[in-house]
Parts: sequence; structure tokens; C-alpha cells
Amino acid sequence: MRAAVHQAAGTITVEDVPDAALVEPTDAVVRVLRSCICGSDLWSYRGIIDRAAGSRTGHEFIGVVTDVGAAVGTVRPGDLVVAPFAWSDNTCPACQDGVHTRCDNGGGFGAPGSDGGQGEAVRVPQADGTLVAVPGGPDGVDDALLPALLTLSDVMATGLHGAVLAGVEEGSTVAVIGDGAVGLCAVLGARAVLGAERVVLMSRHEDRAALGRTFGATDVVAERGEEGIAAVRELTGGRGVRHVVEAVGTPQSWEMALGMARVGGRVGAVGVPHTSPEIPLFPIVRNHLTVSAGIAPVRKYLPDLIERVMDGRLDPGAVFDLTLPLAQVADGYAAMDERRSIKTMLAG
Amino acid sequence: MRAAVHQAAGTITVEDVPDAALVEPTDAVVRVLRSCICGSDLWSYRGIIDRAAGSRTGHEFIGVVTDVGAAVGTVRPGDLVVAPFAWSDNTCPACQDGVHTRCDNGGGFGAPGSDGGQGEAVRVPQADGTLVAVPGGPDGVDDALLPALLTLSDVMATGLHGAVLAGVEEGSTVAVIGDGAVGLCAVLGARAVLGAERVVLMSRHEDRAALGRTFGATDVVAERGEEGIAAVRELTGGRGVRHVVEAVGTPQSWEMALGMARVGGRVGAVGVPHTSPEIPLFPIVRNHLTVSAGIAPVRKYLPDLIERVMDGRLDPGAVFDLTLPLAQVADGYAAMDERRSIKTMLAG
Repeated sequence: MRAAVHQAAGTITVEDVPDAALVEPTDAVVRVLRSCICGSDLWSYRGIIDRAAGSRTGHEFIGVVTDVGAAVGTVRPGDLVVAPFAWSDNTCPACQDGVHTRCDNGGGFGAPGSDGGQGEAVRVPQADGTLVAVPGGPDGVDDALLPALLTLSDVMATGLHGAVLAGVEEGSTVAVIGDGAVGLCAVLGARAVLGAERVVLMSRHEDRAALGRTFGATDVVAERGEEGIAAVRELTGGRGVRHVVEAVGTPQSWEMALGMARVGGRVGAVGVPHTSPEIPLFPIVRNHLTVSAGIAPVRKYLPDLIERVMDGRLDPGAVFDLTLPLAQVADGYAAMDERRSIKTMLAG
Repeated sequence: MRAAVHQAAGTITVEDVPDAALVEPTDAVVRVLRSCICGSDLWSYRGIIDRAAGSRTGHEFIGVVTDVGAAVGTVRPGDLVVAPFAWSDNTCPACQDGVHTRCDNGGGFGAPGSDGGQGEAVRVPQADGTLVAVPGGPDGVDDALLPALLTLSDVMATGLHGAVLAGVEEGSTVAVIGDGAVGLCAVLGARAVLGAERVVLMSRHEDRAALGRTFGATDVVAERGEEGIAAVRELTGGRGVRHVVEAVGTPQSWEMALGMARVGGRVGAVGVPHTSPEIPLFPIVRNHLTVSAGIAPVRKYLPDLIERVMDGRLDPGAVFDLTLPLAQVADGYAAMDERRSIKTMLAG
């Protein structure tokens, strides 16, 4: 089969690789219908973190089950499924606590030794705990819904998780730091899923700000740093926001997040730090803040989010502004690296 | 009147000072029945932080109201009252959010220009929002309960706040880092107020560990650092504790707190950092932790805690292991500085 392979920073190629196949009785094999490129894929593409030459890439995909191991009971060949970016058994203590991304038997697609999402098919470990079938199956789901379903494998669920960690609820006022796909999905999650009343999106890119408004942002602030903090405070009567979603992961974004939170507020962080930063304790103590962080346990959110997409209450598909065939995956990386695309989908 | 005065690091004296008196119509004057010395008083005593020569000391006291301003309605002369260590109006947005220690009209006893608790009387600003009367008044309350009531002005409510920030509830397993008066009160708060089932106290001082057991600690761990983390993990099936109270405020105690929390766990911090430390983001992200911190809004807890003390459900009075007259306040500082006393009460 064909799959994308990381050759070196800046170089992604599509190669012939061994067909995805069952190894364990708990595995399934999924033929990929749609996959996409993640902001985190750019870290190795840009050389910020190391990735072994020859390793597979991509961790977001939806597809059709083509084979299941003897121990698999919840999905069957022919099912249309959404895969979270990490597999999990959905039964261990961590999964029971809702932290599927720290599953005792978990792992990530595209990690060494595993298939990546950017390919024709994927071996899915722990299939029962990982895959969630879409009602209606491949023939019962309009192709127009596939982009929205694909976002559930990572960005939509991750954005929502940030808003959940930030304590967003009906009527909340929220600030979202980060106008990448995750930040934009946090806007949508805060508004359409959790019922926030007011969402301030920090964005200085007009295309992203426009999509943010479509997703429900009520205010857009272009300023950064101290000026950005001041602008958000001005919008909130000087007191700051109760709920901040941090969807970047840099020291600068943390400084903004801690600076614009209201006394007693909450910061929910899904931005993945790729250095090992520290955050200052003083503003947390002084302003009585609560800070929660973590790589989103996407699996936990899937059944509800699939239902919302299928019945039309949630439509995050517009986060994809470029669609390419797998053969042109390198063009997709380049487009995202150069910010010509917010998020690129691979189809066919 | 007589009151304790900070002369220089290591030197506290008792001096004649102007009588406490009403200044604003929202003030009350309280004649002090009992006051005490706080661990945080030792910072300036030890020269770790600067304090102006001649400034008053102490911020914990209970007493009898002797005078009230024209605008004061909730307390009257003759009332026995508990004062939180900080005054607050109990009506501003921060107070309404339960963060009385960030009151728009708040301040702290012993700060420049205000009376300290370690004296014969105290002017209390924002008396209506600050003071809470004890049912029965001075004649209806057994002197034996005064130490317990005095703890409510700071350490008992602060320890409880740490446990609340850590999310402790009925049946929880908790670790408490810090065996000072606040840590010991966190043990008591977690067990007697919030219903925790298991509380691990980190302590290597036998007298403090013994009091911790009296307060409900089910386990005591003497090790520190990596060994302390390993010991707590061993006690919890390798996974760590869901709830950690950080009652020290040093980089070392934070490292332990973050290291012993279970995946998805919570750290509640009431240790006041007197440097400006940073905390590492990586363990928070990796282990999906929630971190909450803040100087305890004692006022919020007072009505409930007074009721618990009066009906015998809560008895934190044993945290005082030395009682001295105000005239010997310097001996109390020395005793606490040299760890001969966990907490020293001043009476008479």
C-alpha cells in the first residue's frame, strides 16, 4: 500500500510500504477514507523535534473497517469508523478516569512501529476501545459530512477538551489563545457544545479570524502580549475572563493566558509544549487561578460528537481549507508550514 | 495600648502604641482575647523578606467588639468575633466569587498603616464583611474553645482551603505536603470536614507526625524528594494520589506535589511562595493535572467552621503547643523559629 513517510525535516514522500495487517487479536485494519495534516506534524517537518527517517506520519483518519482480530467485538468489517489520534483499551484505570491518552495499553498512530494516518490503511491496536462506528455506515453517510467527522479524530475534540478543562459552561465568557485549527475548534466547542455566551478569539490572521467568527467568536483581538491582555481586560470590565483556552503551548501564550484570566479563573491548556517550559507560580497564586492541561482524551468525546455532527448540531468541517490527494501530501505540509492552509485534508 | 512591633530581623518587641480606634464608619474595634504567631511571620523574623522597622505584627486574632462605626450593622459591642487574617467587604465581585482575599476593598492585618493581631486591640476595616460573631458571645463560650476558634482566623481555614482546591471529597485519598500548622490543619480539614478516607502526611518530625495522626492522618511518610514520591506511589498501587495539598511553597515541595499526583489528579496549593518560583509545565501536561492555588479566602469558610467548632465536630485547638502572654511574644517567635513550637498562642 501507499503511505506518507518522513524522510527528513522538510521532506515527506509517499512510498510503497507493507500492507496494514492484523498482528494482535485485538487489532482491526481500517481502509482510510480521509486523513489530514496536524499542526503537530509540522514540528518534525520544521526540524523542531527529531523524527526517525523512514517513520510514518499522520494520526488523524476516518475509514472503513476491512478486517478485525478474533477478540474484537464492537466494530465489524464494513463499519465506518472515527479513530482518535491515540489508541486506548477504554477499560484501564486511566481510561475509566477519562484520561484515554494515558491508557495503560495505549499508544499513538505514527509513533515508531505503528502505521500513520496519512496512508491507504492503518492497523488499529485495541480496536474495541479505540474505534467508534458512525451510525449508517459508509453508504448511509453523505460524503459532505466526512470532513466534519474527520475533525473529531483530533482538532475538534482537542479544542473542546481545552474548553472543558477551562470550565466553560452555559453562559460563560471565554478567551481562546491560538487561531490554529485547535483554537478555532475550541471556539466552536465552547459555543456550540458547551453553550458559552461570549468567546474572544485572539487572532491576527484575517482568514482565521473570519472562520473563528463563523464558528461563533463574538470578539476578535489581534494584539498580543501585554497589549492583548489589556484588550481582553477592556472587553471584560477590567476584570479579565473566567475561562481561558490555551491552544498554542509557548511561554508567550502562557503569559497571555495567565495574564488575562479573572481572579478565580481557569486556564485549560491543550497546546502541546515542544520545549520544556516552566510557568510562573506567582500569577496563579495571586489571582487564585486553576490551571488544567493535557493531551486531549479524544476517545471520551467521540460518541457525543459523532451524534452532534450526524444530526447537524455541529459542523467543524470548514476548518479544512485545502484538500489534496495522498500523492500530494508534501504540498499539504508546505501549505500548512507557509500558513497558506489552516488545515489540509487528504482524500483519495 | 501594648502591641508587638517588628524592629529588625530577629527582634520583636512589645511597645506602647496609639490605641486602636475607629477611622471609617465601616470600622470596628476589637479587644483581642487570643492571637498567635504564623509561619509567615517568621519570614521577616528570619530576614527572608523585608519588613519596615516599627511595623506591627500578627494577623490572626479573636476578640470582643468594643466599638463600631456608624455604618456597621452585623456586629455589635460585646460580640465575640473571629477575624480572618485579611479584611474584605464581602460584597464586591471577587468576594461574590468566594475570593475574599482579592476583595476590591480588602487588606491585611499587620500591613503598613494597619494594626496587627499581636496586640491588645485591633481596628478592623470593613467590619460587616470581615468579622463573624460566635453564637453565645464571650460569656457563653467556654475558654477551652478559644484556641480552636483562633485557628479559624488562618491555619484551619487555610488548610481546609488547600484540601478544597485539591478537590477532596467523601472517600478521597489525599497526600499533604507540609507538616506545619497549615499542613496539619489540611489533614484535619480533609478528614473531618470533607470526609476523605485516607490521608498521607509527609512529615519527618515525630511531634508533628503524632499530631497529624491525631488529626486523622492514616499514613505518615518521612522521605522527601524522589524517595517521598516513590513511597506515596507505593502506598497507592503505583498510581499516586488523586488529591495533593501543597502547604509549603518551595520548588522542592512543588516537585513532590506534581510527582506524586495520579494521572488526572489535582494539586491544591496554599503554601505561599516567598521567592518567585516557576513550576514545570511538562508533568502537568503529561499527567493531565489540575493545579489550583491562592491565599485562602478564610472569610468564606468562617460561618461553617465556627458552627463545627461550637458543636464539637471540629477541634483544631491542639495545633497550639505553646501559650505565652503578649509580653513574651519574642520568646514565641524564637520557639517557632527553632521548631520548638508548632504554633504559639498569645493570651493575656
